[in-house]
Amino acid sequence: MDKLHNLRHSLAHLLAASVGEIYKFDKVKLTLGPAIDNGFYYDIDFGDEKVSDADLKKIEDRMKKILPKWTDWEHKEISKDEALNFFKNEYKQELINEIAERGEKITTYTCGGFTDLCRGGHLKNPAKEIDPESFKLDRVAGAYWRGDEKNKMLTRIYGLAFETKEQLDAYLSQREEAEKRDHRKLGKELEIFTFSEEVGMGLPLWLPNGTVIRQELEKWAKETEIKWGYKHISTPHITKKDLFEISGHLPYYKDDLYSPIDIEGEEYYLKPMNCPFAHMIYKSKPRSYRDLTLRLAEYGQVYRFERSGTLHGLMRARGFCQNDAHIYVKPEDAISELLSVFKMHEYYYKNLGILDWWVVFGVRDPNNLRSKYHGDDAMWDEAEKLTKEALDKVGVKYVVEEGGAAHYGPKADIYIKSVIGKEYAIGTVQLDLYMPKRFDLEYTSKDGSKKMPYVIHRAPLGSHERMIGFLLEHFAGAFPLWLSPVQVKVIPVRTSHNEYARKIFETLTANNIRAELDDKDENLGAKVRDAKNNKIPYWLVIGDKEIEAGKVTLESRDHGQIGQISPEELLGKLLGEIKNKI
Amino acid sequence: MDKLHNLRHSLAHLLAASVGEIYKFDKVKLTLGPAIDNGFYYDIDFGDEKVSDADLKKIEDRMKKILPKWTDWEHKEISKDEALNFFKNEYKQELINEIAERGEKITTYTCGGFTDLCRGGHLKNPAKEIDPESFKLDRVAGAYWRGDEKNKMLTRIYGLAFETKEQLDAYLSQREEAEKRDHRKLGKELEIFTFSEEVGMGLPLWLPNGTVIRQELEKWAKETEIKWGYKHISTPHITKKDLFEISGHLPYYKDDLYSPIDIEGEEYYLKPMNCPFAHMIYKSKPRSYRDLTLRLAEYGQVYRFERSGTLHGLMRARGFCQNDAHIYVKPEDAISELLSVFKMHEYYYKNLGILDWWVVFGVRDPNNLRSKYHGDDAMWDEAEKLTKEALDKVGVKYVVEEGGAAHYGPKADIYIKSVIGKEYAIGTVQLDLYMPKRFDLEYTSKDGSKKMPYVIHRAPLGSHERMIGFLLEHFAGAFPLWLSPVQVKVIPVRTSHNEYARKIFETLTANNIRAELDDKDENLGAKVRDAKNNKIPYWLVIGDKEIEAGKVTLESRDHGQIGQISPEELLGKLLGEIKNKI
Repeated sequence: MDKLHNLRHSLAHLLAASVGEIYKFDKVKLTLGPAIDNGFYYDIDFGDEKVSDADLKKIEDRMKKILPKWTDWEHKEISKDEALNFFKNEYKQELINEIAERGEKITTYTCGGFTDLCRGGHLKNPAKEIDPESFKLDRVAGAYWRGDEKNKMLTRIYGLAFETKEQLDAYLSQREEAEKRDHRKLGKELEIFTFSEEVGMGLPLWLPNGTVIRQELEKWAKETEIKWGYKHISTPHITKKDLFEISGHLPYYKDDLYSPIDIEGEEYYLKPMNCPFAHMIYKSKPRSYRDLTLRLAEYGQVYRFERSGTLHGLMRARGFCQNDAHIYVKPEDAISELLSVFKMHEYYYKNLGILDWWVVFGVRDPNNLRSKYHGDDAMWDEAEKLTKEALDKVGVKYVVEEGGAAHYGPKADIYIKSVIGKEYAIGTVQLDLYMPKRFDLEYTSKDGSKKMPYVIHRAPLGSHERMIGFLLEHFAGAFPLWLSPVQVKVIPVRTSHNEYARKIFETLTANNIRAELDDKDENLGAKVRDAKNNKIPYWLVIGDKEIEAGKVTLESRDHGQIGQISPEELLGKLLGEIKNKI
Repeated sequence: MDKLHNLRHSLAHLLAASVGEIYKFDKVKLTLGPAIDNGFYYDIDFGDEKVSDADLKKIEDRMKKILPKWTDWEHKEISKDEALNFFKNEYKQELINEIAERGEKITTYTCGGFTDLCRGGHLKNPAKEIDPESFKLDRVAGAYWRGDEKNKMLTRIYGLAFETKEQLDAYLSQREEAEKRDHRKLGKELEIFTFSEEVGMGLPLWLPNGTVIRQELEKWAKETEIKWGYKHISTPHITKKDLFEISGHLPYYKDDLYSPIDIEGEEYYLKPMNCPFAHMIYKSKPRSYRDLTLRLAEYGQVYRFERSGTLHGLMRARGFCQNDAHIYVKPEDAISELLSVFKMHEYYYKNLGILDWWVVFGVRDPNNLRSKYHGDDAMWDEAEKLTKEALDKVGVKYVVEEGGAAHYGPKADIYIKSVIGKEYAIGTVQLDLYMPKRFDLEYTSKDGSKKMPYVIHRAPLGSHERMIGFLLEHFAGAFPLWLSPVQVKVIPVRTSHNEYARKIFETLTANNIRAELDDKDENLGAKVRDAKNNKIPYWLVIGDKEIEAGKVTLESRDHGQIGQISPEELLGKLLGEIKNKI
């Protein structure tokens, strides 16, 4: 146990003791209180008493008041009967009975006069070792006894704790920043997406602003893919179950699928992935070695079952649109194609300012080589070897995760980190030697024989849902110009300037710049504030001086006042920045 | 009965007589033989005899041989018993019993010695009035007795018949052209789309070439919509049943819906239309008169139940992607917006060379004003009046169809006609005063009161499926440059010219022109033939002469040899034609 854990665990005891003193030890039932990431908590049955965030101050004050008396621990081993006699509440008694049943020792720890059932792991001298400014009670939440919703709902008090005040402050300000950047909050404020109770949970409706971002990302992806030799396809969202029987989703992945639709007596499923459809397109005509490498890309919408409790805004939804592609490659070209695929990831992330990304390379569990995985050893060895070789060659940061493979092959899961340090799994690169076999994919080689292509799966931009959720947090809603739903706001100072402003506005839109004209009869300050609130990258102010000079005054969200500029210069500047994705 | 009908009906008798002579009257059972569009048919029970297209010549020859004897008709009214005694086969007897039951007269017609049960309608003197070169037996098909699949399968012989040989020839060559242009045939040859048995009927998979066309149409639509003040949204493909209960699809339109999906105990449906989702986005925040007119567009994929027997390539599919939009408008702006919507239709069709389009204006059935329709009379009168006013003002060709309204309002169904005269319903304009009420849509008017907006539905480009199916036939697969999957093919004469050819190819692709380099070691003729077969608009031939001159030789699918041209001129020409959608 490390020091920070012991500090947090000690504070959980201190919390319980303070609650007992304030709410009386014979009225409340103390249950369990572990150390956790960032702090600690204690679950308490307060009986009829209602405890809320408003009570935290008083409990925290008591903790700080009694802390100086917490100078050492007394440790005791006691019998089951002693324990049951000492801890009268039913929660502790349940724990005691279980410990006894397992044949383990029952131990108590006492500090500052407060005794708790505990297995140990504390600071030796909390009074000396804990800075009272380095911890803080955080919030009150409901929690079922032992996490089981059939049990009673207890009151959980969360605390934050670090070794120093500085660390606590840093954590608090980082959390505040993260809350400000929460994609659900920003998504609502900036009108990016919404949910509707009538449509259902986990099914985002993209508002006009969000749809612009989707379309820009998609346009960028398509142009990039075309340059890298991809072709695009478009496939249905439902299929007869036959297709998923070939792919093995039925019966193995039935839990990810929604219940079937009946069409004229046959079962159809919503697709949880696009792969099998791409394979059917591969199979739609005979392929020769000359047709390979064949790269089939699709921004394809898939639907996967997620329990309602696990849904989280755009980050975990029931329907999402993947930046998918399936690459059919001759075995001898697999490595060079994998290299190219990783290079493409790098290109995207660099352009988005995602400087930190890495790969978790999931291979088979070495203790369980056969039972959990399909396909034979030779296939696995080949796929793992080629993927590793590509990862080494491309020089991307990666860690190996034993047991992290998919059932049909190794995975290279891509993780990205936002500027505020939030990490997300965004996509996967997989070299697949299993599905081409199940789908009987083949090509005629140069010598006329039939061979099996390898398949590479990839989705560098992940899904629109997760990527845009991530970017909302990454950019704190202040999207770069090329991705901004509104790129420029044109602001006439008074209505007498509307006519000139409209001309500027029309010039911008005629050049495919997403401009907005704010010709309402309101004051300038309100109009500029509105532009800032909506995180619009540029706004133009147009008054008498500007009209006289035949110019506009340009201001930037990120760089402040830029000054007077002619409409031609403005156009050149904006189009250049959009083109270069600055 | 007009002359052509009588001619065709006379020929049906002549066909029956000839079949009887060849296959023996006591062996075959003649049943029914009417005149139809383009000709006639006769359904015959041949017993164990197999009759196929190969037998048509012999039957047709017999028709022509005996025709000179068919100079007049003898008409008789007979009793039921006489009839049953004369016509011994069970099919005719069934007909006779039915005629008798209805209390109608039983009549026979005899010509050239052949007597049939018939109500009349013949040419007086077939021998004189029918040109033997103006008709032709066409094909043999199976047909259930009286169209009921529980009955016996009979053999149907189809004939084509016109007043003159010229008319027959014209029909045959038009039909041949139509067959050549059949979108299913061209779709396969040009690799536009495919179907997969494992995916299911009516669910097209778009191949790379087809996906290019979809994307180009979509890009054009989006740019156009942005220019016309539309915003884009993107909504899920499934929804809880609640949404369709508000819209009234449940229970009224359950037959169009696929069976529900169960998610955590709630019923979800695939969407058959996008409207309710757009309405939820309208409702996602309070709207003011300043926000109107609000135009929300979505290329939205919908799924509607169609019986498998009615599916027809892209023209009738189970899933399709609609060029949809919902326009929320203040009542006083409805007419000007409708005008704008019709103008947009005109713009699209003109650009696609669809010169003939018109509207079928579906209003309520005047004899049934209440029972079949939702909403009150005032609403209907208003919607019909405004739609009519807009149609009159815009000057589009329209016909009124009484009883053609939707259940919730009048419809202006848009029909387009291809260059070979095939007509399709492509979209609908609807002024909807009913759904805004069901969805409780409102806006705050200038005086602060809450008002209901009107909704206009429109889809000028229909669905990708039907539009691209139509365009395949309209262009006979020879898409204009901007829509062509491959725009230019670069053809080096010999492999020694490959390097220069590659440079040209790369210049083209760097300028976003869809080029293909054919650097295979094959002869020039084969490469050019391949370009022509794939209906590629332009190809470049590059040999010694071209490299020496620093030029390329350009040839056009539509205009033949163009001659030598510099790479810069080529680029300018192609980019200009693409931009102008020539």
